[in-house]
Amino acid sequence: MTFTPPSKIFDDILDLIGRLPAAHEDMAERTRIRNAQLTKPEGSLGCLEDLAIWLSAWQGRHPPRCDQPMVSVFASNHGVATHGVSAFPQDVTAQMVANFQAGGAAINQLCDNIGATLKVFEMALDHPTNDIMTQDAMDARGCAATIAYGMEAIAGGCDILAIGEMGIGNTTIAAAICGALFHDSDQDSVRDWVGRGTGIDEPGLQRKRETVAAAIRRMREEHGPDPHPLTVLCSLGGRDIAGMIGAILAARSQHVPVVIDGFVVSAAAAVLYAISPHTLDHCIFGHVSAEQAHRALLNRMDKRPILDLGMRLGEGTGAVLAIGIVKAAVATHNGMRTFTDAGVSEKNIS
Amino acid sequence: MTFTPPSKIFDDILDLIGRLPAAHEDMAERTRIRNAQLTKPEGSLGCLEDLAIWLSAWQGRHPPRCDQPMVSVFASNHGVATHGVSAFPQDVTAQMVANFQAGGAAINQLCDNIGATLKVFEMALDHPTNDIMTQDAMDARGCAATIAYGMEAIAGGCDILAIGEMGIGNTTIAAAICGALFHDSDQDSVRDWVGRGTGIDEPGLQRKRETVAAAIRRMREEHGPDPHPLTVLCSLGGRDIAGMIGAILAARSQHVPVVIDGFVVSAAAAVLYAISPHTLDHCIFGHVSAEQAHRALLNRMDKRPILDLGMRLGEGTGAVLAIGIVKAAVATHNGMRTFTDAGVSEKNIS
Repeated sequence: MTFTPPSKIFDDILDLIGRLPAAHEDMAERTRIRNAQLTKPEGSLGCLEDLAIWLSAWQGRHPPRCDQPMVSVFASNHGVATHGVSAFPQDVTAQMVANFQAGGAAINQLCDNIGATLKVFEMALDHPTNDIMTQDAMDARGCAATIAYGMEAIAGGCDILAIGEMGIGNTTIAAAICGALFHDSDQDSVRDWVGRGTGIDEPGLQRKRETVAAAIRRMREEHGPDPHPLTVLCSLGGRDIAGMIGAILAARSQHVPVVIDGFVVSAAAAVLYAISPHTLDHCIFGHVSAEQAHRALLNRMDKRPILDLGMRLGEGTGAVLAIGIVKAAVATHNGMRTFTDAGVSEKNIS
Repeated sequence: MTFTPPSKIFDDILDLIGRLPAAHEDMAERTRIRNAQLTKPEGSLGCLEDLAIWLSAWQGRHPPRCDQPMVSVFASNHGVATHGVSAFPQDVTAQMVANFQAGGAAINQLCDNIGATLKVFEMALDHPTNDIMTQDAMDARGCAATIAYGMEAIAGGCDILAIGEMGIGNTTIAAAICGALFHDSDQDSVRDWVGRGTGIDEPGLQRKRETVAAAIRRMREEHGPDPHPLTVLCSLGGRDIAGMIGAILAARSQHVPVVIDGFVVSAAAAVLYAISPHTLDHCIFGHVSAEQAHRALLNRMDKRPILDLGMRLGEGTGAVLAIGIVKAAVATHNGMRTFTDAGVSEKNIS
């Protein structure tokens, strides 16, 4: 795909994207070989086998490991929230960040439950991004700086990274980004991308659809019909999305596989996907959200979620549950005996 | 449904089934009330919220807990295995039991991974049940004794029980039971119930279909067109299925919620379902197996699995992964703060 190039300010980021490391096929192969020797019928652990191979490939090691999972949650506020697109007031973003810090939120319990470290990125909550109905959410310089800030997500060391978010109004932002990336702009065609988020009522849902359609039209007027995905990002926001993009890229550079959470994090992934689908090869999608747009987005990117539990909370909650499945994949791959070691007969040759 | 009554020997078991305790609605209600106060949009934890309520209802306590999960694996051998219906030789059953005892199998790693106790029930492996092509698998006395033995599954104490199995030939037995319970007997209509098990080839699959159809016809000739589900159990086996039925019933009596694993354990559950669907109200279905018949069986019983990970190993591996999700449900329900405690604003009244 060819786009109108983005601001020169993004040259370093585009350069990084062009030089992302490939999978370690040798390590994936070692994992496949051991996998075939373990005391189970071939393929009978299904997704767990695939996860062990994927982890080896992107960690660049065999055996794979999942000893230091980290969950990075990006919290930000969005000017668009003033249009009544959420069921909750904007103060809730900061209140929930305080709740994360005090250990009282869902994500805290789920991190404790599997021994994951939780990091919260508080992104200038007192200064929401611009209202995307009327102007670009961020300028290129601010956006690039926020992507760079997001790269801190893996600082401190981890062997797998889950990415989550918190921010009143952010499903509106995610819907606008998806509509723009996938060329939907009238109210009918944005319908797929706009859901009830935290639980908005019918009139609110209608307002949300109108807001998203208007923001996309405004962006097209300013940036032309086919802007670069990073221009879409600046124009429609938000800081959380930019930070998550930085996190996904930094993880790839540092051989840390990534677990994407729900719709909003997947919208960040979609920006990278639109630049090049291979930028997401080190990512899995932890779950499919009950927010309808998420399933549509996964389908557009041809991604299969690990879990489907009817969740739509965000915070990284779906992703951290999927890390539980990854831990199970590592435990079985690394701990099971082989047919030879266990003295178990192999399959009959028929 | 009315059946030809089974042997008098089953009177005690039928009496137990008639007196199974109901859910503790008061505890479920307490869980619902707290759930509505937690810092998240209503319903946004999806399945996790349902699991916390289900656990409270069947443990008869609030808060629910998942501190002592237990996995009971029923291993047995089946005379029908002599017909070449499995990809593995029958010796593998005992070899895998040794592997369980040595800690080398998938289920060992998955139990360790979530802190579950593993119990293996070795059911006279040197004496397979009768060949169901030619005669009943067990007599009523042996079957009733095996159900009673299965009741030991929860001995030692646990707050949730996962049930698994191991046994060469047991998907053939499960297919025969399903075909008999759901009135399918010709080769075409048993097709839905017969899958590749551990990975049998096409000629083996055809043999397996013929074997299952013949066994069901033989049962009908001996026991009439509409035998009681416990008569089906005696006639088509096996000891593992009987033991698992005992485990499900004992758990209900002792207020222990149950997680069913794949196709074979679900076939045991189906025997109880055929007697009365309510006997399974304390059970969830941990996953849907890649063995095609499992999805068909869950649909017939109108049950939704927690996980869908393309697994088909048995041993309880899918069920113990689902216990990981139950632990997450308990962690969030019990550990999260309420809106009031955390100082988070509630939803706007629009």
